Amino acid sequence: MIDTDIRPGEIAVTLPGEFDAGVYFIGRIRTPWTNRVECPKNARGSDAICTIELDPRYATGLAGVSACTHLIVLYFMDRARRDLMMQAPRHHSDLRGTFSVRSPVRPCPSPANSEAPSRPSAAGFGRSGLKFE
Amino acid sequence: MIDTDIRPGEIAVTLPGEFDAGVYFIGRIRTPWTNRVECPKNARGSDAICTIELDPRYATGLAGVSACTHLIVLYFMDRARRDLMMQAPRHHSDLRGTFSVRSPVRPCPSPANSEAPSRPSAAGFGRSGLKFE
Repeated sequence: MIDTDIRPGEIAVTLPGEFDAGVYFIGRIRTPWTNRVECPKNARGSDAICTIELDPRYATGLAGVSACTHLIVLYFMDRARRDLMMQAPRHHSDLRGTFSVRSPVRPCPSPANSEAPSRPSAAGFGRSGLKFE
Repeated sequence: MIDTDIRPGEIAVTLPGEFDAGVYFIGRIRTPWTNRVECPKNARGSDAICTIELDPRYATGLAGVSACTHLIVLYFMDRARRDLMMQAPRHHSDLRGTFSVRSPVRPCPSPANSEAPSRPSAAGFGRSGLKFE
């Protein structure tokens, strides 16, 4: 099964013909996982070392993050399909509405993770288990 | 002062010439506030009745949200400027890095609010103090 397959019972809708707004990728998250199926269900599911590489253009914006208890990291999974409204998550036996699960498969694919920063640098930040570059 | 003015000490960067990805507006949030300056600092700052209107196209995706303890609502402030990396928040006397504050002024303007759903319907959801349509 590849990332874009639809599972039995899942419901897709027709998306609008054009986008309403654009986003800039302010950086890249490097992880050991190369496809969605391999990703842990949540951050507690792995001790892997991951890296957030922030575009140096935005480095000034990191000022003061070391004083934050948590950072909310929104990431865009650019290959996740965006049209499913009912989904069959791997960890559930039943179908779930897209807005009741944290799946990256949604109209605007922005899963959120809350990270406690520990070592902010000029170009990155993270929590225990994250490496900074 | 209008929303797009720059305050003393704030630092802007040159944004990329094009977007990396697009988003769909899946609905609209209706509030009593018509400009950013009037908005409360956070949800505890007001008891105003607000409404989330979900595009009926996506209504199926609400299945099961009543079982969620919280919903994370990401909203796109389309008129917020996106180029400031150091900001002078109204509630602080010093300058702050963009990634250390929750300001909607950021490269991808997606503030997040966590809402406890109480009355999901076919076309909306929310918490105490939010009205559903």
